[in-house]
Amino acid sequence: MKFDEIVLTGDRPTGPLHLGHYVGSLANRIELQERYKQYIMIADVQALTDNYEHPEKIRQNILQVALDYLAIGIDPAKSTIFIQSMIPEIAELTVFYLNFVTIARLKRNPTVKTEIDQKGYGEQVTAGFLMYPVSQAADITIVKGSLVPVGEDQLPVIEQTNELVRAFNRTYGAEVFPEAKAIISQAPRLAGIDGKAKMSKSLNNAIFLCDSADEVARKVMQMYTDPDHLRVEDPGKIEGNVVFAYLDIFDADKDAVQALKEHYRRGGLGDVKLKRRLIDVLNTFLEPIRVRRNLFAQDPHAVMEILMRGTAATQEVARATMQQVRSVMHLDYSSR
Amino acid sequence: MKFDEIVLTGDRPTGPLHLGHYVGSLANRIELQERYKQYIMIADVQALTDNYEHPEKIRQNILQVALDYLAIGIDPAKSTIFIQSMIPEIAELTVFYLNFVTIARLKRNPTVKTEIDQKGYGEQVTAGFLMYPVSQAADITIVKGSLVPVGEDQLPVIEQTNELVRAFNRTYGAEVFPEAKAIISQAPRLAGIDGKAKMSKSLNNAIFLCDSADEVARKVMQMYTDPDHLRVEDPGKIEGNVVFAYLDIFDADKDAVQALKEHYRRGGLGDVKLKRRLIDVLNTFLEPIRVRRNLFAQDPHAVMEILMRGTAATQEVARATMQQVRSVMHLDYSSR
Repeated sequence: MKFDEIVLTGDRPTGPLHLGHYVGSLANRIELQERYKQYIMIADVQALTDNYEHPEKIRQNILQVALDYLAIGIDPAKSTIFIQSMIPEIAELTVFYLNFVTIARLKRNPTVKTEIDQKGYGEQVTAGFLMYPVSQAADITIVKGSLVPVGEDQLPVIEQTNELVRAFNRTYGAEVFPEAKAIISQAPRLAGIDGKAKMSKSLNNAIFLCDSADEVARKVMQMYTDPDHLRVEDPGKIEGNVVFAYLDIFDADKDAVQALKEHYRRGGLGDVKLKRRLIDVLNTFLEPIRVRRNLFAQDPHAVMEILMRGTAATQEVARATMQQVRSVMHLDYSSR
Repeated sequence: MKFDEIVLTGDRPTGPLHLGHYVGSLANRIELQERYKQYIMIADVQALTDNYEHPEKIRQNILQVALDYLAIGIDPAKSTIFIQSMIPEIAELTVFYLNFVTIARLKRNPTVKTEIDQKGYGEQVTAGFLMYPVSQAADITIVKGSLVPVGEDQLPVIEQTNELVRAFNRTYGAEVFPEAKAIISQAPRLAGIDGKAKMSKSLNNAIFLCDSADEVARKVMQMYTDPDHLRVEDPGKIEGNVVFAYLDIFDADKDAVQALKEHYRRGGLGDVKLKRRLIDVLNTFLEPIRVRRNLFAQDPHAVMEILMRGTAATQEVARATMQQVRSVMHLDYSSR
């Protein structure tokens, strides 16, 4: 069997998306949708693994994430956006996959291991959390995803998926699923406004795609620069200076940025002036996104309708996949 | 919310059912179906947790188990027989429940612990196997089962189910599921024909409901009695003598059995004569079952149709349950 390349990607709907998401994955999706069949999953079931006590939070963010997608240029005619919890076939496939993976193997997953340590779960880790890589394998394979955009730190997800794919195909003697290939993001990771390596809602250091021009200005003004650059005339450092990191990414005028860097290093360029430039750059970038977002936000029903259409299309594919799964597993007693 | 009592029971379709099943659970179901709404699940997904490499075996046994049910008098007008793998809602609910149970808790389950030890799995236990009690909780609660017939050794299943029920209801602030009560089997456990405590297909010591009269005769003739009872005139032991254990259960003439026991103890009653009586008793019991079984076996399509009708009825209930689950979890974006 030959597989066309199919992209599976998505986000946990735990908050609005921010510039870090844009640089790390969203920008890439706008290109991918031109070249491949692309599924974008709003991963509400996965978000519940560590938010199961606050499902209302997940619920509210479904629409926000969808608005962000549409605002940045994800085109529902090219990309299929769907809601994970509405595809029961993912749960079915997850349950079958659980027979192909040991508890020892799940505990060895470096990504999960790190997260368990960070959250201090220990043996009190829930079964749902330990197993989310299995659920991810089901997310990917239910649409026969073959390309999965990930960060370097998420490569274990692809490894786990392919172990399951190989075990399943081998056991049931059929090439039901393709192995998945990672598309590793080449983008630099965007630092938080506080200079921390990771931009994240929970670290309270994010600029959201839906932030107003004023909020962007306020956040940039707080941005971490060079703590030793006290007076305008002092020489300043570029390394670790978040403002320059952002200019490198968002300012199209590379020569101007280069000149600013030299000026800053010599001394005589104040942080405020520099930040004003970044505010302009970011707001120029974000303004059309905001306009599109506000437009879509005026008709939330239409947005939900887009999600429902994408979900229906995914349901159809998922049903076909599970029919094949049932067939090779001799579980096809009758079509439902 | 008030719940009517609903019985959930079932079997793994790993082989035809035998006299041990009859005594331990099947006989009870014929009574239960007169008093309660009863669901009988053919647990193919659960059977896969330790047979995932041989799904064809499960497949073949679905029909055999259904024939056994119908043959002993399970009435599809009173009991709803369904196939587990055709209810995707069970997998969905399982995935949600996995967030409410820790790996440490799953490892403490005494039934699973014993099985893991017996099978020598250790840390190489599959995730699917360790979690089957969670899947059982989903089996029970998807139909809002409140009564579950179990052996004493399976009480941990009910405990695990009720922990999940309480955690779910509490977290989402709604009485979605009733707690389950165990109906503990009062029946003595039927020994295997070799005298081992448990009759089981894998121990090769079972008399199946579908055995022919000749097979029954052959198996009874091999039956373990009193190894020291070498000559007819010797006194024999009743304790541990499988033939008497079976007569106690299946021979309606209690006085005659009592007389035989006394005669055997005194000496002068040979094993062959005793076994001939048991052969008669068992074949008298099994003959109408065989006749009904053969009748149903002539039309396997009609039997599958019964399973499909029961499954469709269960699907409807399962969908309603999951709609309620989605509603309290704020996941009811739209009805599917």
